[in-house]
Amino acid sequence: MTETMQTLRALQKKLYAFQFALNVIDYDAQTAAPSESYAGRGEALEVLSGIQYSLIADPALPALLEKARSEALGEQEAAEVAELQRMYDETSKIPAQEYAAFVKLTTAAINAWEKAKAASDFSLFAPYLEQIVDYRRRTAAYFDPDKAPYDVWLDKYEKGLDMAQCDAFFAQLKAVIQPLVKQIVEKGAAIPSDFLNTTWPLEAQRKLSRMVMERMGIDAGHCQLGESEHPFTTEFYKGDVRITTHYHEDDMASNLYSVIHEGGHALYELHIADRLQYTCLSGGASMGLHESQSRLCENYLGRSLGFIKNLWPQLTALFPDQLAGVTPEAFYKAVNQCQPSLIRTEADEVTYCLHIMVRYELEKRLMDGSLAVKDLPAAWNAQMKELLGVEVPDDAHGVLQDIHWACGDMGYFPSYALGTAYGAQMMAQMRKTLDVDALLEAGDWVPITRWLEERVWQYGKEKSPAWLLQNACGAAFDPKYYTDYLVEKYSAIYQL
Amino acid sequence: MTETMQTLRALQKKLYAFQFALNVIDYDAQTAAPSESYAGRGEALEVLSGIQYSLIADPALPALLEKARSEALGEQEAAEVAELQRMYDETSKIPAQEYAAFVKLTTAAINAWEKAKAASDFSLFAPYLEQIVDYRRRTAAYFDPDKAPYDVWLDKYEKGLDMAQCDAFFAQLKAVIQPLVKQIVEKGAAIPSDFLNTTWPLEAQRKLSRMVMERMGIDAGHCQLGESEHPFTTEFYKGDVRITTHYHEDDMASNLYSVIHEGGHALYELHIADRLQYTCLSGGASMGLHESQSRLCENYLGRSLGFIKNLWPQLTALFPDQLAGVTPEAFYKAVNQCQPSLIRTEADEVTYCLHIMVRYELEKRLMDGSLAVKDLPAAWNAQMKELLGVEVPDDAHGVLQDIHWACGDMGYFPSYALGTAYGAQMMAQMRKTLDVDALLEAGDWVPITRWLEERVWQYGKEKSPAWLLQNACGAAFDPKYYTDYLVEKYSAIYQL
Repeated sequence: MTETMQTLRALQKKLYAFQFALNVIDYDAQTAAPSESYAGRGEALEVLSGIQYSLIADPALPALLEKARSEALGEQEAAEVAELQRMYDETSKIPAQEYAAFVKLTTAAINAWEKAKAASDFSLFAPYLEQIVDYRRRTAAYFDPDKAPYDVWLDKYEKGLDMAQCDAFFAQLKAVIQPLVKQIVEKGAAIPSDFLNTTWPLEAQRKLSRMVMERMGIDAGHCQLGESEHPFTTEFYKGDVRITTHYHEDDMASNLYSVIHEGGHALYELHIADRLQYTCLSGGASMGLHESQSRLCENYLGRSLGFIKNLWPQLTALFPDQLAGVTPEAFYKAVNQCQPSLIRTEADEVTYCLHIMVRYELEKRLMDGSLAVKDLPAAWNAQMKELLGVEVPDDAHGVLQDIHWACGDMGYFPSYALGTAYGAQMMAQMRKTLDVDALLEAGDWVPITRWLEERVWQYGKEKSPAWLLQNACGAAFDPKYYTDYLVEKYSAIYQL
Repeated sequence: MTETMQTLRALQKKLYAFQFALNVIDYDAQTAAPSESYAGRGEALEVLSGIQYSLIADPALPALLEKARSEALGEQEAAEVAELQRMYDETSKIPAQEYAAFVKLTTAAINAWEKAKAASDFSLFAPYLEQIVDYRRRTAAYFDPDKAPYDVWLDKYEKGLDMAQCDAFFAQLKAVIQPLVKQIVEKGAAIPSDFLNTTWPLEAQRKLSRMVMERMGIDAGHCQLGESEHPFTTEFYKGDVRITTHYHEDDMASNLYSVIHEGGHALYELHIADRLQYTCLSGGASMGLHESQSRLCENYLGRSLGFIKNLWPQLTALFPDQLAGVTPEAFYKAVNQCQPSLIRTEADEVTYCLHIMVRYELEKRLMDGSLAVKDLPAAWNAQMKELLGVEVPDDAHGVLQDIHWACGDMGYFPSYALGTAYGAQMMAQMRKTLDVDALLEAGDWVPITRWLEERVWQYGKEKSPAWLLQNACGAAFDPKYYTDYLVEKYSAIYQL
């Protein structure tokens, strides 16, 4: 390895250490920290992210990267240099003080959001969201003053994505999903699901979480489950991945599918190649790719009849009274009911992307300035009515349900829908060589996870999302796999 | 504030942020991390502690401190400068690489210790302890090549402490404690405690923990309780203090008194003056002072009859079957039984310091080279036999019981005994103006904690341990308060 690359490796190790610290602090804040402890955490994060900033926005870095490019580089080294260049370009454009102040702002915003959600009072969160929207609108100009701010941020979460593509993608989904929902509501066979509305003891739910993680092949020595208000995944490094869930005594499906969803994220991180450890190429390729894996596990694997059949002996042992007289088939249908509802994370597969479209439309308007933060709750409720036909009873079940905006993210949500569609295309390809249903029924996830590891997971950020998708599917992205899947699955369930 | 002081304040803020990150990472490692995750954590800690080192061992710092001293300084500013000077002197003497490598070593050592303790196999831990002992022996010479290594480290934990003082202190304790134990064993009235040997459901124990923290006046908004192998306290800043406990289904006293002990540490940190926040003067004054507060809460308050009487309605509501027919007086006597035993953290007040003496003697010999790590288990067992008269059945209940050596600490243990004696002297002084027993029985901890806050807690590291002790007690340290207390309390309990 050249001396230049050695210097760059040392820098990457430093960046790794800071990201490790920031991620642990964030994980702790969401799972263990006392409720009033954010002030000092914000002070610490401001300092640490300030130093992290100065490491990556170092004015000497471009010359070093230029030098590295002039030397003979291996494939991985070239990818490291390219990624460092991208990080430099993105970071150095935001002044250091603004960067650090934003980290501090989001620490306070998350705290305010938690309180606002608990009190179902948007006004507690609004002043923070105003600052976040202002920051995102203002700083977008540092990257491209001629580009619409929202296009700048969409591109950051998913390289190359813009509003024109999103509009087309969502229009394609809407054209299939809205008629499908209408058909289901008007003509679908009734699905009995009353048995889900009972009490599910938390200790048994906790045991179920561990069983499911084991079934998925998640190594407990490197991945543990915590509890937080909003389920999430974070990776400190490939040897230490954390997922969280939230238990509800009156709803077992919520935890079950949160664990499988976050478990999908975890499997991705746990299987990134060792050679990428401590470099800037560790971690998933993009938000969309990451969501493709979590949504794939949650829906295409976890909500399949085969998986439920396999889990049935353990499920009924944990919940003998609750599931007395219930068949795996009835449970399968009940957890796949299509029902326009209020909460995104608990939405069924058919209506899920409509929830994303609500957020996409609102983010678009917040970013172009046509919607003020103070008017957001009313706009949210109107969008929910228009796209899903539901009345939002309060902000906790409406505009305050997601943590993303409090974290400062604007433009993240579309990647959930994109990822869901990526995943459908991967599954279609996987099914050409694997009998996925039989494997799930046998509880054998290994061939499935190996398929994904070989084609996607191992590469981390070394390859682009488009390359990975092409590599996995043998074709460019096409949302039709996803809409076809929905129509086929739900026509069968609802006997349309 | 002068420009120099402003620069020094900025440095202190940076040091705060790094310590915050290191403490969160450590807390997470002990409470939440997956079992096989230490490798990447060690890499991150090596980098972060390396940068922390370079901040405090900055060659430009002495001149800056000199300049600050030449300017007009307030009392707190002068104390900050003195503390920064002390930190510089201590840190800069250890080469950067050795400092960072040691942090990495202890990360691996803690992991090895956990496994060794679980397997009760000292050989799994020995290679790490050898390196730790070697480091402590070798690096002591950087501070004073003419001083015995153990004297160097004793002084680091408790300013001015050395083996001569420890020998005299422990001899004074031994002269009272050993005859007292003998009297109790030979002539003491029998204390019925069979009722403790039953099953104590964990959920009720968890509720008890929260009740006790509330009774102590610990603000849940700024202090939360976690679970770990070994109970401990850590402070991220005065607004975020964490304590941990370990639950045993067959032993409720273990958790009860762990929570009160760690709660004492927490109260100290939570009450350090706001003006010291984010400076190097936040945090307790010394290990001895810190242990004085935790042991004071655990023993002089928590093991009192008044406290138990006050807690009784809640205790019996949580454990109605277990405590049926038991009186507060019987419970008081049972949790104050004197019984030479194996585990330090669960030892009674009389024999506790004998456990410390075992460790003190062994550390002395490890540090002077007369005891090899491989011979440590046998030496431990021999010391336990000699001082406490007990046979050690295995390493888990012997040499592997404490985490301290794995953390790299050598010379910490004596501060537990010193702190215990400091606390007794403070209590004697407090009793001159407060009716402590009546307050405890009424559940009113406020006058007690205020007394301690005013005299000790608020000052953080601004004042020396000796100043604080004098301030609280109106006299210099005298271990006689402690031995008098033991003789009085235990003569009454055992009707000697």
